[in-house]
Amino acid sequence: MKKILLLSYCMICSLFAFSQNEDSLMVRRIADDILINGKAYDDLRYLCKKIGARLSGSANAQKAVEATATMLKEAGADTVYLQPCMVPHWIRGAKEQGIVQWGKNKKALNVCALGMSVGTPASGLKAELIEVANFEELKKLGAEKVKGKIVFFNYPMKPELIFNGYGDAVRYRGSGPVEAAKLGAVAVMIRSVTHALDNNPHTGATRYDSTVNKIPAMACSTLDAEWLHELFKKEKKVELFMKMSCEKLPDVLSYNVIGEIRGTEKPEEIITAGGHLDSWDLGEGAHDDGAGCVQSIQIIRTIKNLGIKPKRTIRAVMFMNEENGLAGGTKYAELAGINKENHIFAIESDAGGFGVETLGLTGKPEQVNKVRSWLPLFRPYGIYDMPDGGGGADIGPLRKYGTFMCSVNPGTQRYFDYHHAPNDKFEAVHKRELEMGAIGMTAIVYLVAQYGL
Amino acid sequence: MKKILLLSYCMICSLFAFSQNEDSLMVRRIADDILINGKAYDDLRYLCKKIGARLSGSANAQKAVEATATMLKEAGADTVYLQPCMVPHWIRGAKEQGIVQWGKNKKALNVCALGMSVGTPASGLKAELIEVANFEELKKLGAEKVKGKIVFFNYPMKPELIFNGYGDAVRYRGSGPVEAAKLGAVAVMIRSVTHALDNNPHTGATRYDSTVNKIPAMACSTLDAEWLHELFKKEKKVELFMKMSCEKLPDVLSYNVIGEIRGTEKPEEIITAGGHLDSWDLGEGAHDDGAGCVQSIQIIRTIKNLGIKPKRTIRAVMFMNEENGLAGGTKYAELAGINKENHIFAIESDAGGFGVETLGLTGKPEQVNKVRSWLPLFRPYGIYDMPDGGGGADIGPLRKYGTFMCSVNPGTQRYFDYHHAPNDKFEAVHKRELEMGAIGMTAIVYLVAQYGL
Repeated sequence: MKKILLLSYCMICSLFAFSQNEDSLMVRRIADDILINGKAYDDLRYLCKKIGARLSGSANAQKAVEATATMLKEAGADTVYLQPCMVPHWIRGAKEQGIVQWGKNKKALNVCALGMSVGTPASGLKAELIEVANFEELKKLGAEKVKGKIVFFNYPMKPELIFNGYGDAVRYRGSGPVEAAKLGAVAVMIRSVTHALDNNPHTGATRYDSTVNKIPAMACSTLDAEWLHELFKKEKKVELFMKMSCEKLPDVLSYNVIGEIRGTEKPEEIITAGGHLDSWDLGEGAHDDGAGCVQSIQIIRTIKNLGIKPKRTIRAVMFMNEENGLAGGTKYAELAGINKENHIFAIESDAGGFGVETLGLTGKPEQVNKVRSWLPLFRPYGIYDMPDGGGGADIGPLRKYGTFMCSVNPGTQRYFDYHHAPNDKFEAVHKRELEMGAIGMTAIVYLVAQYGL
Repeated sequence: MKKILLLSYCMICSLFAFSQNEDSLMVRRIADDILINGKAYDDLRYLCKKIGARLSGSANAQKAVEATATMLKEAGADTVYLQPCMVPHWIRGAKEQGIVQWGKNKKALNVCALGMSVGTPASGLKAELIEVANFEELKKLGAEKVKGKIVFFNYPMKPELIFNGYGDAVRYRGSGPVEAAKLGAVAVMIRSVTHALDNNPHTGATRYDSTVNKIPAMACSTLDAEWLHELFKKEKKVELFMKMSCEKLPDVLSYNVIGEIRGTEKPEEIITAGGHLDSWDLGEGAHDDGAGCVQSIQIIRTIKNLGIKPKRTIRAVMFMNEENGLAGGTKYAELAGINKENHIFAIESDAGGFGVETLGLTGKPEQVNKVRSWLPLFRPYGIYDMPDGGGGADIGPLRKYGTFMCSVNPGTQRYFDYHHAPNDKFEAVHKRELEMGAIGMTAIVYLVAQYGL
């Protein structure tokens, strides 16, 4: 009996070793294909240079829908289709102005309207500018000192926060206008949400609610914020002239773009890999999130190039409208529910095209353990850990169905230098780093397609 | 008895947990100090912008010796001293020329002499240029077809080699001149050793031996190499005019720069953390290896800022002459032997200032296990693994004494874009990535200083 047990054990071990070895060879083939024949970088160049910024509802966003549908067909997807969804249509209008005045002096700042902000009156708006370090300081000032003023939230991304400084500081972009309006402020300017000290203003969505006036909101560059902080030490009264012609137009019909390879054995089990196709309008949407889109397209291309017949269905999804509404991600999950689809796994790349250091995982413990057992296959490709905590804005709505969530985590500190800013251009993305991300995504999608969860 | 055992076990566990918690708090304090008060980036700016390239034997290298000695004093080292060593003194001379001629056409290439190369005759050298893909092709051609010609080694860094493409391709820089001279070639040109496709020529040391003539050797940019490859498809006869006035002068006295904090309990146990102070002469030696130097200085500064009294002795070492001789690293180990020093641990940062993803370890198994048990302390700072294989060119000579070797491994694919090239400038280094590397180094040096191996 013992012998039989031992034999069985040895057989299981050698089967496991054989399987690990097969997988290791396949991941090597995946990596070779992407590093030698990959087109992700060319696709990204097209999205950035031939199309450019792709704000939801814009003509460019529509061009990007058509372009990525073509890319997915050329990559070899069995089916390519569009998933209609209504998206907000906010436009920036003419280049914004933010001119500081003190005594007889003036200085133009590097500013941009926050996304979804209302505009100023056509002739602009001028009021005293007051600096606050945070919400607590604002509340201490109270309505008396805030009413009629423009509030300048000079809250930095804290240097000691290594991976969560954005989440901490972005509260001022999101809630600054509502909190200031509660006290009677006429407008808001925030310090751009970035660690970088430079002249780039960073946009991004702000929010209003129905309880208070919608007041115009802009961001200034971090160098301007530092300069203003010094100015406030010397000057008692500083005024700001703001002019923004942004406005929200009626919603527009747009699309998620989906390319699918149908599974051979369990086609009803669906694996989603995606990025978001829309971008802010100041740069070219290279890191955020052209990178995630072209990496997802590369998954399809490599699976096809290598002649892999996945057992489960693989979808590359270009989500529309992540930046200012999440209409695409919401619609994708809604249709999954209506169509009773079985979404077993979803992965999103939306943290820049910097290559992956870790893959974040969220799922049932036994599923997480199964995925984590594959980690040795990833180490040769620079993926060293699979910590708890997977997800992504666009795939998030699938979680309610129990879908396993995976996030692509590059460890670099560079992402927020480009995030929502004019310098988020093709040139900021490194070809091989982009490809390293695609390798990690393709490998995990392949493994889930073959072994399930 | 069982109760007592259980109690002891609980006490040991809680002591361990307490110690881990204490360590975790200390690593947090180290990280905060570096991210909030760190001066590594300022020091790097000084090395790059106020001094610049620091080739061994040059006036700039001497300036860098003096500047880093001052930095180490300001950082708070108990003792700062110089360690004399004789270094090679190779100079590039006037800007090199490499002009391709075919039919009646000419084109100037982006070239540079390889480090330690002999020059051409003062009036230059002109000969037929023949392209070979590798050493095997060269050997097949044989002396008959190679004699009197200039051999162009067009061997690329292979895209599918993720972390070892450099080691594979750099053989042509190192051994190309000797292999070509064996067959009677009059000179050599190599394709620059980088994945990047651009116009930067990359230098780096080449070697001669006593068996054959020393022939001049240069590198052309990768874009030029690609262009030449196309030209050779069309043209039967291509000539190259080379002019290089580089030469090797007599050796010069130079120095390793050492800053030390003496251990309080076991001062005889020495921990070395270093980078190399010399650099190639085309850029500013920012990633290679100003970064490693200023990170090492930051270790001293942070230990002092936090009032830590390390139990063992910590040395930050700026090694001289890594690039073309390793005189500094060799001298450091030689003196360690002569002075019967007990070097328990050495870490080197010489893979660019990109932040660390893993720390490579080489030591006795029980030592490796001990260091690896600290990994959880590093994960919050983006260090996810401690694979086998630590070391560094400068610390390598210590290994013969049994010193534990640790290497700082950034995972990025960007390093060889800058390596030995004109674009290795301060601007290519990211402040926070540089600091993340310093955090990893300081934390591991702290732990070894407190707990030993």
